[in-house]
Amino acid sequence: MSQSTPCAKTARRIFAKILPAFDDGTIALVRQYRHPAVKYLLELPAGTLDDQERPEDGAARELEEELGMRAGRLEKLSEFFVSPGFCEEKMWLYLATDMTACEQKLEDDEFIEIVRVPIERALQMITDGEIEDAKTIIGLLLAAPRLGAATLALDYPAV
Amino acid sequence: MSQSTPCAKTARRIFAKILPAFDDGTIALVRQYRHPAVKYLLELPAGTLDDQERPEDGAARELEEELGMRAGRLEKLSEFFVSPGFCEEKMWLYLATDMTACEQKLEDDEFIEIVRVPIERALQMITDGEIEDAKTIIGLLLAAPRLGAATLALDYPAV
Repeated sequence: MSQSTPCAKTARRIFAKILPAFDDGTIALVRQYRHPAVKYLLELPAGTLDDQERPEDGAARELEEELGMRAGRLEKLSEFFVSPGFCEEKMWLYLATDMTACEQKLEDDEFIEIVRVPIERALQMITDGEIEDAKTIIGLLLAAPRLGAATLALDYPAV
Repeated sequence: MSQSTPCAKTARRIFAKILPAFDDGTIALVRQYRHPAVKYLLELPAGTLDDQERPEDGAARELEEELGMRAGRLEKLSEFFVSPGFCEEKMWLYLATDMTACEQKLEDDEFIEIVRVPIERALQMITDGEIEDAKTIIGLLLAAPRLGAATLALDYPAV
């Protein structure tokens, strides 16, 4: 692995993030303690891809393992560099629909709280500052038109 | 500085990113070579905040130094963690309008190509994959409704 960037642990790693959307108009987020942020954050589920794994396969695998859900349909929303000035970390982002339940397979030390909210509420959580993870913000903003959600409220506070 | 995260060089650093929007409907991006991405990327201008500097002051300073532009109005669009699973890096994001020209103050080793495009074209560059920087994607998506831009095209390719 290259040591050319200061972001050693994430260098060259590739991630998939998934927005699971349900027929009732809700989407699923996970609430996790994030040590670097020193707080609990609401994020879309995500995971690191295994060697040679295709991003869409990794997204489907993470969805099953973390949330116990299987997607009948996965659509790519975007791929992007998370912080290209410092890290090689790259992210693939998918919208998952046509969901069915399956067995959840969490690691022994993994604890995940799943939070389901209407997509409109999730968009409001961006403008309210309740959602603070860059990749989650991108996923929600890119998926909103496909999910028929109204555009962002414009009256959130300015400086 | 804490050594608790693997992202040492960015740990606890705070950044401001600015979307400069002009009266003619265009916005300004910068094209820079990004070593971790191994390519040139189109991004919104950004910079690191000085000690004790308020994010909006840092945004205004970077806009003057990098682009030679002064904003009559700065609106906060968002603040977020770039990659909270790994890094403490936090980003403040501003929309700059009511622009006037001033003297550009680049460092000796700094070379910046400024690219002005209509906001609608910039949104299309997200869905076309021409804009690949997470923070730039967020800035454009959050600013678009304020700038009166049409919503994203929905017909971009799925997997």
